[in-house]
Amino acid sequence: MEKKALAYFQSGGPTAVINSSLYGVIAEAFKHPEIGGVYGSLHGVEGLIEDHLVDLRKEDLEEIELLKQTPGAALGSTRKKLPPVGDPLFGKIIATIKKRNIGYLLVNGGNDTMDTCYRLHSFFQAERMDVQVIGIPKTIDNDLFLTDHCPGYASAARHVMNFVKMAVVDGAAYPKGKIVLVEIMGRNAGWLTASSDLLKDDERPDLIYLPESSFSLSDFLSDVKRVYERKGYAVVALSEGLDLPRTNAGGTDSFGHSSLEGVSIHLAEEIKSKLGIGVRVMELSLPQRADPILASKIDIEEAVLLGKAAVDALLSGESGKMVALRRLSDDPYKTEVFLADVGEVANKEKFFPREWILSPERMSDEFRNYLRPLVKTASHVKYDEAGVFLTARLRLETL
Amino acid sequence: MEKKALAYFQSGGPTAVINSSLYGVIAEAFKHPEIGGVYGSLHGVEGLIEDHLVDLRKEDLEEIELLKQTPGAALGSTRKKLPPVGDPLFGKIIATIKKRNIGYLLVNGGNDTMDTCYRLHSFFQAERMDVQVIGIPKTIDNDLFLTDHCPGYASAARHVMNFVKMAVVDGAAYPKGKIVLVEIMGRNAGWLTASSDLLKDDERPDLIYLPESSFSLSDFLSDVKRVYERKGYAVVALSEGLDLPRTNAGGTDSFGHSSLEGVSIHLAEEIKSKLGIGVRVMELSLPQRADPILASKIDIEEAVLLGKAAVDALLSGESGKMVALRRLSDDPYKTEVFLADVGEVANKEKFFPREWILSPERMSDEFRNYLRPLVKTASHVKYDEAGVFLTARLRLETL
Repeated sequence: MEKKALAYFQSGGPTAVINSSLYGVIAEAFKHPEIGGVYGSLHGVEGLIEDHLVDLRKEDLEEIELLKQTPGAALGSTRKKLPPVGDPLFGKIIATIKKRNIGYLLVNGGNDTMDTCYRLHSFFQAERMDVQVIGIPKTIDNDLFLTDHCPGYASAARHVMNFVKMAVVDGAAYPKGKIVLVEIMGRNAGWLTASSDLLKDDERPDLIYLPESSFSLSDFLSDVKRVYERKGYAVVALSEGLDLPRTNAGGTDSFGHSSLEGVSIHLAEEIKSKLGIGVRVMELSLPQRADPILASKIDIEEAVLLGKAAVDALLSGESGKMVALRRLSDDPYKTEVFLADVGEVANKEKFFPREWILSPERMSDEFRNYLRPLVKTASHVKYDEAGVFLTARLRLETL
Repeated sequence: MEKKALAYFQSGGPTAVINSSLYGVIAEAFKHPEIGGVYGSLHGVEGLIEDHLVDLRKEDLEEIELLKQTPGAALGSTRKKLPPVGDPLFGKIIATIKKRNIGYLLVNGGNDTMDTCYRLHSFFQAERMDVQVIGIPKTIDNDLFLTDHCPGYASAARHVMNFVKMAVVDGAAYPKGKIVLVEIMGRNAGWLTASSDLLKDDERPDLIYLPESSFSLSDFLSDVKRVYERKGYAVVALSEGLDLPRTNAGGTDSFGHSSLEGVSIHLAEEIKSKLGIGVRVMELSLPQRADPILASKIDIEEAVLLGKAAVDALLSGESGKMVALRRLSDDPYKTEVFLADVGEVANKEKFFPREWILSPERMSDEFRNYLRPLVKTASHVKYDEAGVFLTARLRLETL
């Protein structure tokens, strides 16, 4: 009988370490001659639909090594969600699976992707096709169920911590400074914004606002005013997902700004108009999820580990699972890999525990103990001759 | 006769390496017992006015060493410009100078600061006071006259290059992506924005716009559209100082946005409304001048060197000069320090040569040869136990 081939795809917003999981998948799969082809599906599930697969065995080992510091999605990503079963797309997926003899499928992504993972697993089961599907988590939002934390989070948190410190150090230069609003990713979950709490007392934001707390504009303004009057400047960490009161009593937008403007621009206008204090907005933007320079070494290692564990799970006959991390101890930091039921992960969100938010000035010790081991170690970055971080240059040779 | 004391101050916007020049000043001054006190003036010239001086000899050597990776202004900065001679402030400066027996003054900053430097030098000469004044350049804008380049520029350029590459790598993930507008500092000079040109072909911005070129909105939109149609996304590097046509024929603001919004928000609105393509704005913001992690090793070394050279110039009896760099060769990279007349530097701006702008897609080889040696080497960064870059903790013990 022909050996079953393995296909892997990436989906959703890239992180600094999603390609480290790809590295782990490749490193492990190459060790197993019982696997037929080792394929990458380009642009997530779209590659399966369109039969856009690349042969990962054709890649240079040196470039594969660089995947561990390559941001973005090396195989391309997609925002596509699977349509309901019965849609012709499923026929196209079956055609590719059969044509390429794919029996192992790895799906690397966040919440939506785990839904895709679960639905593909269920579909193949219903069709009595011998295709096993395993999910590999990734998200800077850290909002996946069952796993202790998600690959991608720690690197993004380390970026946030270092960049908030830059804002604090820069902001302290003038006797009368500005209020710096640092806008941090996380539409619904405040894990990433909260990471700035781990900074030392004179390096940390004065105020931290997460989407998990109800937001009062008047409290916000009086908090900001109080800090500014004491220090002459203030640094405020804001989650992009803050639930702002965006409509006034008349039902119209009370700000009148465009969709391009995030919460920080809105709040900056409020500070300027109500408090008359100068404000600077600093959106951390894409680099939060794309900075390999501040990536956490442990995050890279865990992303690799989960990629390898996913291949092992397939070879053990598993399907419909997500490889996940269980924490055994904070100090010394110790975790183990386990298989979570991907149906329990799909489409849920793990929010930042409200009891960990002590005030806008302080998160709990539990949170700091949780975060500390994830961010503490720097990774070693290779630069090119222009001083720019190197990235993997893949051939992406299609089948 | 009592030995003359040395005072040093920082002024204007901080850079990643201004404290490296402070390090150089301290390292050199400590070697010379013929110098009386070695003082830092807090918040630029304000420290001289208010007699807020700190004794740098009281600082720990370990912390002084960390100045080389400490962003911000370790002694505080100021936006204050000197009033005309005759203002009572000058009397206060004289009082501090006499009280502390200051005979050497070092002034570290950009254009405005070199004006302060020149005016203090001229004032002390006119008053027949034995106070020598030497300027030390710093600016990420790289717009100071006479010096080949300015400390601070190369580190900011390395930050810009790496962050633009992140945007490119992240932006390439989706089959149909967005247009990413990267807004880069430089109110009048495009040196920093132009640095993104040094990136490799598949890592660089598709389009680069500097303030030195006249800007046509219709050309901009058609350039962007052309790239987007070819690639499915585009990354555009924009200088914050672009001369946008902000008023329409009727004389009113054609955009209607607030002062908080830079050129990138304005142009994003134009792209959305005129081309109907999704846009993401990425302002590099404060970290351009405050990122020690991507600081250029050569930049740090040169900032230190110029700090030392400034002390040497004082001890050689010089005044009214700025320590500057003259380039002897690009490859191998070789420079020498010389003394420029600070009066010739003050209040002028060195713009990016228009002949180096070949098109919005390409700067000249001359520019790349100029920039390459400045950015190529990474610095070694020390992190704390939370994975955050360490900074110097100074006592700042006032006299």
